[in-house]
Amino acid sequence: MLHIEFITDLGAKVTVDVERPEQLLDVQRHYGRLGWTSGEVPNGGFVFPLDNEPDFDWSLIGARPWTNPEGEVMILHRGHAYRRRELEAVDSRKLKLPKAVKYSRGAKPTDPEHLREKADGEIEYVTLAMFRGGKRQDRFAASQGQGTSAGQGQPREPRAAAPAGRYEPRPQPDSVPMSRPTARAAASAPAEEDTPF
Amino acid sequence: MLHIEFITDLGAKVTVDVERPEQLLDVQRHYGRLGWTSGEVPNGGFVFPLDNEPDFDWSLIGARPWTNPEGEVMILHRGHAYRRRELEAVDSRKLKLPKAVKYSRGAKPTDPEHLREKADGEIEYVTLAMFRGGKRQDRFAASQGQGTSAGQGQPREPRAAAPAGRYEPRPQPDSVPMSRPTARAAASAPAEEDTPF
Amino acid sequence: MLHIEFITDLGAKVTVDVERPEQLLDVQRHYGRLGWTSGEVPNGGFVFPLDNEPDFDWSLIGARPWTNPEGEVMILHRGHAYRRRELEAVDSRKLKLPKAVKYSRGAKPTDPEHLREKADGEIEYVTLAMFRGGKRQDRFAASQGQGTSAGQGQPREPRAAAPAGRYEPRPQPDSVPMSRPTARAAASAPAEEDTPF
Amino acid sequence: MLHIEFITDLGAKVTVDVERPEQLLDVQRHYGRLGWTSGEVPNGGFVFPLDNEPDFDWSLIGARPWTNPEGEVMILHRGHAYRRRELEAVDSRKLKLPKAVKYSRGAKPTDPEHLREKADGEIEYVTLAMFRGGKRQDRFAASQGQGTSAGQGQPREPRAAAPAGRYEPRPQPDSVPMSRPTARAAASAPAEEDTPF
Amino acid sequence: MLHIEFITDLGAKVTVDVERPEQLLDVQRHYGRLGWTSGEVPNGGFVFPLDNEPDFDWSLIGARPWTNPEGEVMILHRGHAYRRRELEAVDSRKLKLPKAVKYSRGAKPTDPEHLREKADGEIEYVTLAMFRGGKRQDRFAASQGQGTSAGQGQPREPRAAAPAGRYEPRPQPDSVPMSRPTARAAASAPAEEDTPF
Repeated sequence: MLHIEFITDLGAKVTVDVERPEQLLDVQRHYGRLGWTSGEVPNGGFVFPLDNEPDFDWSLIGARPWTNPEGEVMILHRGHAYRRRELEAVDSRKLKLPKAVKYSRGAKPTDPEHLREKADGEIEYVTLAMFRGGKRQDRFAASQGQGTSAGQGQPREPRAAAPAGRYEPRPQPDSVPMSRPTARAAASAPAEEDTPF
Repeated sequence: MLHIEFITDLGAKVTVDVERPEQLLDVQRHYGRLGWTSGEVPNGGFVFPLDNEPDFDWSLIGARPWTNPEGEVMILHRGHAYRRRELEAVDSRKLKLPKAVKYSRGAKPTDPEHLREKADGEIEYVTLAMFRGGKRQDRFAASQGQGTSAGQGQPREPRAAAPAGRYEPRPQPDSVPMSRPTARAAASAPAEEDTPF
Repeated sequence: MLHIEFITDLGAKVTVDVERPEQLLDVQRHYGRLGWTSGEVPNGGFVFPLDNEPDFDWSLIGARPWTNPEGEVMILHRGHAYRRRELEAVDSRKLKLPKAVKYSRGAKPTDPEHLREKADGEIEYVTLAMFRGGKRQDRFAASQGQGTSAGQGQPREPRAAAPAGRYEPRPQPDSVPMSRPTARAAASAPAEEDTPF
Repeated sequence: MLHIEFITDLGAKVTVDVERPEQLLDVQRHYGRLGWTSGEVPNGGFVFPLDNEPDFDWSLIGARPWTNPEGEVMILHRGHAYRRRELEAVDSRKLKLPKAVKYSRGAKPTDPEHLREKADGEIEYVTLAMFRGGKRQDRFAASQGQGTSAGQGQPREPRAAAPAGRYEPRPQPDSVPMSRPTARAAASAPAEEDTPF
Repeated sequence: MLHIEFITDLGAKVTVDVERPEQLLDVQRHYGRLGWTSGEVPNGGFVFPLDNEPDFDWSLIGARPWTNPEGEVMILHRGHAYRRRELEAVDSRKLKLPKAVKYSRGAKPTDPEHLREKADGEIEYVTLAMFRGGKRQDRFAASQGQGTSAGQGQPREPRAAAPAGRYEPRPQPDSVPMSRPTARAAASAPAEEDTPF
């Protein structure tokens, strides 16, 4: 038997028993849809293959798409909204980087020091996920994971694919406070998936 | 089976087994009434929908209303008293913020750095909960949650609704030491709910 | 079932299963008599009602009375000795404080910053427990707690009431190194309760 | 029964039950091949006997060999690539050091302070493992560990021996960003063992 | 039932079930012989009665005696070697200290700040254990603890008593790098108890 430790949408520490290893990802999807998360976001953010980005199942990490008041699709994770940014490939003499898609937000005063990344100027940001290189893994797709986990038979709602983000070579802080979501706890109701406010 | 990890009113680390996921919130209410808490207060405080504020069940987070010697209703959480503050909506060219209700207290020297929020001047404060925007969730209401949890059949005491707080656009530290509650441990007896001193 | 996590007298992390919630305090008393502790001392120390001070059961927090070489009764907790201090009530225009009894010690170089409280001058101290206000809770008394916990039937030794401490309006560091107990591990033997050295 | 706590390749905290102590290393190999790790890398890195270096089973610590775009074999561990460096024996009047093999990488801004080791000049690095002295332990070899763990019968893929690294008396940071692997999550698929990108 | 949490010799977090409380010390001895440790070394080191020093069972804390290349017996604990130092009694007007035996080492750059103790001059050291005062407890002796723990019937190897250390009123850092053990992992094989290199 396995046991996975979550922080619930209410901030509680709850461990869930899992009968078989092959059920683990489905249990993560199930509770992830409620806004529960397990473990910490790695320093620098999660890293996934670029080919997983179009249909990535954000519930795997307790996140979900959300359309902000300006109509932009963002990713909500533990009450923070992350914006999609496309990073073009760099191929200069000093630096070679494949193209990538990154989900990040401006740093807030209460963010711990080690999560803040310096960008140009004074701006600091925090990355949730980086999609770059790699080889697609079907187990990360939103269309995966139905029904193999015992006891959670509810049908999974269809999920909007991540939006085509605008090109933003440099990270930007969330510029208007209005766009700061208040969904830390409200995030847990699947039915309100599009409007946490 | 699930397992929820609490810090008891005596500061002990105690995990409680929970048979079914749907019992979890009731177990949190049950032990929360004893002053037990699970997990940490998120940086910046819990965030709940504004419409949940009038009848919010504070036991969900191990807190409870308490009337201080001046007759003001405050919220006690792990021995600290938080004051209700109404924040009016802001709608200027630079800033748009919906109205909100916030429960906060002045920072104390032993508070860790990342919890302290800077306000105008030298004052620092710590937020327990912010009620803003969102859509009411009945599962957070004080009248919810009876009896679905096996083995904890005691009737739940009626709970005073949160008071109509006075308008305070800026956070204030708890100004008189007298108002500092000594109830860290005493907070655990439901019968003394109105007077921990 | 519940599970309580201790640090043993040897510093090991050990979790003990507890069948029923009502056995929890007795399990804490039982292992607390061996010097085991659960969780951390809260910042600023435990807070208990003043009326619980005369017959407080220190085993609840893994502590015990100990008579130092000068004949003074102190409280031993994880190898540190705390001295009893009576704080008189303050009733001035600026400050109102009820009378209290406090158990504290001088800070040591290896104490973490957030535990150190500044007093007058350069002296820093660490508080184990503060007894102030509140309403007596019988469950904290040394004469409580016999026998309801399955499998720990040994008779409980009588416990000296806390001594009448001398008046000390300001905290004092433990002035002579000689009074520093070496009982971190030796503290676990109930039979040597008066002389850990 | 034993229980081993892992961080999965997706960053989740998952505990796995292990029936008998002698199955423990095999469970570590099994989940280690998926990129799961247990506990922290010790300050200064893991230390193993030098004679274990040629056929060390990196899955024991959740790592695996990976050939970078320049054709160099490196060790991937939690999304970081470590380079093999041979340290020659030192035998001067001031210093005596046996020869060793070290796997290290340049420090990144998000690395915590206590992991960074100072080298000559401004360069800081982080060590994953040091092979020095000691006596070979067969239990660490890649050819060990088949089949004694119940329920994980898949054949183990052959594993390339660690490459003959070039002599590098001083640590070097990973000089080109291109060599920074994006495999933090992708690392979990055994089939893609040679090319995480 | 009890559950004790270890860090294994490979750094993994492993919890071991223990049927009865009276088996706990034997389980600690059993896994301690493999270099597993539970919990943290207390700030300032473990404290034991002086009379337990001659036959102290170091396996209780996951440590073991080791003879360094100069022929000196040291104590190995999590890859660090600690030297025995006899502290004479001090009886001046300002200071009274009973005689003691201390096991300490020079601080390393990767040691956390709160473990480092300042000595005369610039030297900082870290203490593993202090034997001072107290009353002998037979349960700490190397000849104790056979066979009461179910399922671990291997005969216990005889253990060399701690050596008569030379007098060293002031702590000394390990002066030659050569004496730095590489045994963090290799420490786990009881058969190589005298020579981890």
